Amino acid sequence: MNAEIGESVSIGPGSVVYDNVSIGDGTKIGEFCVLGHEGPGPSSKLKIGRNSIIRSHSVLYSSSEFGDRLETGHHVVIRERTVAGANLRVGNFCDIEGDSSFGDYCRLHGYAHVGKGTEIGHFVWLFSLTTATNDPLPPSMISAPVKIGDGAVVCVGVTMMPGTSIGKGAFVSAGAQACGIIPPGAVVAGHEGKIVSHVSGLIHFESGTRHPWMRHFDRGYPPEALVRLQQLKDEVLATRNDLVLSHP
Amino acid sequence: MNAEIGESVSIGPGSVVYDNVSIGDGTKIGEFCVLGHEGPGPSSKLKIGRNSIIRSHSVLYSSSEFGDRLETGHHVVIRERTVAGANLRVGNFCDIEGDSSFGDYCRLHGYAHVGKGTEIGHFVWLFSLTTATNDPLPPSMISAPVKIGDGAVVCVGVTMMPGTSIGKGAFVSAGAQACGIIPPGAVVAGHEGKIVSHVSGLIHFESGTRHPWMRHFDRGYPPEALVRLQQLKDEVLATRNDLVLSHP
Amino acid sequence: MNAEIGESVSIGPGSVVYDNVSIGDGTKIGEFCVLGHEGPGPSSKLKIGRNSIIRSHSVLYSSSEFGDRLETGHHVVIRERTVAGANLRVGNFCDIEGDSSFGDYCRLHGYAHVGKGTEIGHFVWLFSLTTATNDPLPPSMISAPVKIGDGAVVCVGVTMMPGTSIGKGAFVSAGAQACGIIPPGAVVAGHEGKIVSHVSGLIHFESGTRHPWMRHFDRGYPPEALVRLQQLKDEVLATRNDLVLSHP
Repeated sequence: MNAEIGESVSIGPGSVVYDNVSIGDGTKIGEFCVLGHEGPGPSSKLKIGRNSIIRSHSVLYSSSEFGDRLETGHHVVIRERTVAGANLRVGNFCDIEGDSSFGDYCRLHGYAHVGKGTEIGHFVWLFSLTTATNDPLPPSMISAPVKIGDGAVVCVGVTMMPGTSIGKGAFVSAGAQACGIIPPGAVVAGHEGKIVSHVSGLIHFESGTRHPWMRHFDRGYPPEALVRLQQLKDEVLATRNDLVLSHP
Repeated sequence: MNAEIGESVSIGPGSVVYDNVSIGDGTKIGEFCVLGHEGPGPSSKLKIGRNSIIRSHSVLYSSSEFGDRLETGHHVVIRERTVAGANLRVGNFCDIEGDSSFGDYCRLHGYAHVGKGTEIGHFVWLFSLTTATNDPLPPSMISAPVKIGDGAVVCVGVTMMPGTSIGKGAFVSAGAQACGIIPPGAVVAGHEGKIVSHVSGLIHFESGTRHPWMRHFDRGYPPEALVRLQQLKDEVLATRNDLVLSHP
Repeated sequence: MNAEIGESVSIGPGSVVYDNVSIGDGTKIGEFCVLGHEGPGPSSKLKIGRNSIIRSHSVLYSSSEFGDRLETGHHVVIRERTVAGANLRVGNFCDIEGDSSFGDYCRLHGYAHVGKGTEIGHFVWLFSLTTATNDPLPPSMISAPVKIGDGAVVCVGVTMMPGTSIGKGAFVSAGAQACGIIPPGAVVAGHEGKIVSHVSGLIHFESGTRHPWMRHFDRGYPPEALVRLQQLKDEVLATRNDLVLSHP
């Protein structure tokens, strides 16, 4: 094995680490993983940051670069030319198709599917079974990838149609079909992807919890992230008066 | 290997069985499985009952207990503190997030996703791509897991919203979004999760087959289960006159 | 190993190839695959054609036969008695349940789920998270598998209800629920699966690209396929005047 392996790295039974891989200090690799699988075309290193956790049966292609504290679930596939900031967390059975970018502290739940070329900001949430598509007339050679702004939340089962641009702090409700340009702080719902309210109107009455989510959720973030989250919350709240609803 | 392995147990090529595992007699483990993976926090044994079949690439965490004749498909993940009765069958690519409970004879088809804390009765069916969620204001620290009563049927592609309680023998139609309290024997459909009829009204005309399903389906159940199924059928039929439709 | 292995075949680390397998010349098998897994009942050979690529963590059962240039993604499951023509491509996490047939040059994207008994023609596209069901009154012993005609396109997240028959060159839009008999060249949309237009009306204005897709998409097909695609395009275009819309 000619890979560059940092200090205190553990590699689980059976896992295959090809030569073009660089693994940061303190990272743990689970069982039956494949790291550095080569896709078509020219290929460069797979770089995994420090203190990461790659769970069993994960496949990470070459030519990608991940910041520190990457965490993958089990059975994850991440293809070539994916770039991610700090502490990306990817749930079980996720499929990231490559040529995509993630800011810091993004969270993907199970079966999230990120199409080729998707651009994702910081602190973005993709819940289970969300799909970012990219072909407006399938099948075609046209590519219209999705963009997702900082702090946006995409709920379970949402399809983001080709070319969708989700604004900072926007919220796409469970089962919705998102399309077009979604303004910052907007709440989108239903199969026509209508803008129905501002995120500051999302409230859990029993507990008094309300959005934007940075008001009440801070599990697992280090101090430097918490400062950024408070700043982001203020920016999202400031969009309240600019929002125009689909059905005013 | 210090795991407790019963008689006539077979373990497939490559599979990893950690020390904190107990496997009942006659159980077959396929290839590339990981049994006894430890999650965060204190951990106890993974107990797998007798005559079970764990298919290849499955990952079962510690601190869980399964009755006899557990069957998993390929590429299944079951996290810690899951408790299941007899003969749970879990399809390919299912993700059971832990802290959940299953009665006897539950059947999950492919890609079913059971969120943390879900409580599932006996003889429940979850078809492909069904999701039991638990966070009413994602992301938040609030947990409102789903409950599913005995003999309920959840069809392909259904999302069960946080806090949904599905009554005994109820039927959630393909693609519906289930929410709130669903009465016993109710049929739910569509994105508002409306109650549209009683299960005894579900008929396949060409064959004369009708619900509740215990009337006509008995494949793979042992005699003791068949007795319970007939009792359950009677209980579901008895709910016919109590049902109030969403749009009478 | 008593399997029949052709010339220039490579088999990745850990992969298990059972005796009842025949692999054509030039085929590459990735890591941690299981080939020739036996299902219930009598079993015959698994035959994989020449120059195929089976990516890591794939599971192919016995009693199936695939033409040349089969390609699977990672974590694919294909059960017994599946028959496929030339150059089937199956995306990551697909689940093909067996007793199904595929013509030549079919393309499945990630998480496509093909129920038992599905009959699929040539040049068919199944995009991510598409499901072909087969039980009209789940759970029951009744089987009503889906049929899909040559050149049909099934977009992301579509559920094909039991017994659906999709005509040649038809197009099922993202998130639709397809049901009944869909005429050749029809475009189907929404949860009632309404026929809304003919595929020749599907246009990407910015680029002037229009359907049927054989007009503009030819990536990855050999010359003999291109000739057949042009013929298929003409056949689909010829259905324009026969189409009756659901809401004329």
